Amino acid sequence: MIGRLNHVAIAVRDLDRATALYRDVLGATVSAPLAQPDHGVTVVFVTLPNTKIELLQPLGEASPIARFLDKNPDGGLHHVCYEVDDILAARDRLKAGGARILGDAEPRIGAHGKPVLFLHPKDFSGTLIELEQA
Amino acid sequence: MIGRLNHVAIAVRDLDRATALYRDVLGATVSAPLAQPDHGVTVVFVTLPNTKIELLQPLGEASPIARFLDKNPDGGLHHVCYEVDDILAARDRLKAGGARILGDAEPRIGAHGKPVLFLHPKDFSGTLIELEQA
Repeated sequence: MIGRLNHVAIAVRDLDRATALYRDVLGATVSAPLAQPDHGVTVVFVTLPNTKIELLQPLGEASPIARFLDKNPDGGLHHVCYEVDDILAARDRLKAGGARILGDAEPRIGAHGKPVLFLHPKDFSGTLIELEQA
Repeated sequence: MIGRLNHVAIAVRDLDRATALYRDVLGATVSAPLAQPDHGVTVVFVTLPNTKIELLQPLGEASPIARFLDKNPDGGLHHVCYEVDDILAARDRLKAGGARILGDAEPRIGAHGKPVLFLHPKDFSGTLIELEQA
């Protein structure tokens, strides 16, 4: 069912510093920061040959990564995003397998303009998984 | 400098359960478990079209992921591995940029039989980064 690893998301406290590290020290191609107020984050995309890394900094007062950064003051690996062909079929298979979907289990339009769901980390070895319709 | 994302490593407490979830619920292709006593882990490889996920369970008494699982009882995202063409050139560039290499900064032969280094999470937004010579 799951296809490509769309991205790995890393929550950071200081986006400028994290971006400079990826650009100047790791020598990667990085985008300009993109504010996504609907998603409560500012994002920098790190383009790798086979996938991308998303550096996320909280934006606004109800950022979904604020609590993570409270628990992990240095930042850290926040979630992985796998692509699926059909998000509703994926959801139904997950529910049938006993996995919990976060929220009301209705796909939302995610940061890339495509339908997404998030799966409960307790059901996946402590890992927050995003599914995105490819 | 960094190239492909070679893998994302997820530390798990119960490898059989995590493997079943990836195989049966997420519908991914998974390998048989591979004991790597020299690295203190048993690994299951999850093959995705563009990269792989490694599910790691502690093996032996001095597993490098034991402390992580003490802090994260459910398991969780442990590290990302980026490929580099020349591990010694990468190390020197990192040191010049002020990033700390774990251990004595001499590449070791990693779990895939290739030279690897690990970078200090404090220097990379709380993320443990492995570099592997491609």
